[in-house]
Amino acid sequence: MNAINLEQKLEVFSKHWSPKVVSSYNENEIMVVKVQGEFNWHSHPDSDDFFFVVKGKMRIEMRDDKKMLPTVYLSEGELYVVPKGVEHRPVADEEAHLMLIEPKGMPNTGDEKTAAIKEKI
Amino acid sequence: MNAINLEQKLEVFSKHWSPKVVSSYNENEIMVVKVQGEFNWHSHPDSDDFFFVVKGKMRIEMRDDKKMLPTVYLSEGELYVVPKGVEHRPVADEEAHLMLIEPKGMPNTGDEKTAAIKEKI
Repeated sequence: MNAINLEQKLEVFSKHWSPKVVSSYNENEIMVVKVQGEFNWHSHPDSDDFFFVVKGKMRIEMRDDKKMLPTVYLSEGELYVVPKGVEHRPVADEEAHLMLIEPKGMPNTGDEKTAAIKEKI
Repeated sequence: MNAINLEQKLEVFSKHWSPKVVSSYNENEIMVVKVQGEFNWHSHPDSDDFFFVVKGKMRIEMRDDKKMLPTVYLSEGELYVVPKGVEHRPVADEEAHLMLIEPKGMPNTGDEKTAAIKEKI
């Protein structure tokens, strides 16, 4: 029974786009992740996708039927929830540190074949 | 489609223990709240209870069948999830700013009769 310090958890690994599970909330995993560069375009048909910026900046590009939607720009202390089914691509020009919340077992890429293994730390 | 800045949301109200809804994630509400002093002892039989400290410090006292469990102390950038069914009391000696996540419609006091109305801001 200890508080979870997100920055401390983020200090113990360096790999980008490799979410680490730090806690859980009902049937969801709470994760931290370091990101840099462009992730792949993907969507989650059955779940919203929660992003919170712990450090740095990032943006979430979104599109609907290949038509670009307005990009959401996130700085430290800001959050955005991508609505379920909306195709999106997280991008960070420089390394950023995020907290993510996703249902347990949901593939981070939207596809089990390419999904990262979410190790608990 | 804009990022949600938690500190900006916290600037627009001052009342303590009055959660404001800033976004949603699946069937959950994402809220910010200002706290100071002792909240009431309560539990949520059907849901975990997510706390993240945006600013300041607080603690979560917990008990099981009236027997005190170890208290969890939280500082800025730290989170804790109270497991469902565990009786708990959030306490802040000085004002602290939190992000909370709870299922939509769940009473924050564990009791509909005493629950705060969760206004969207």
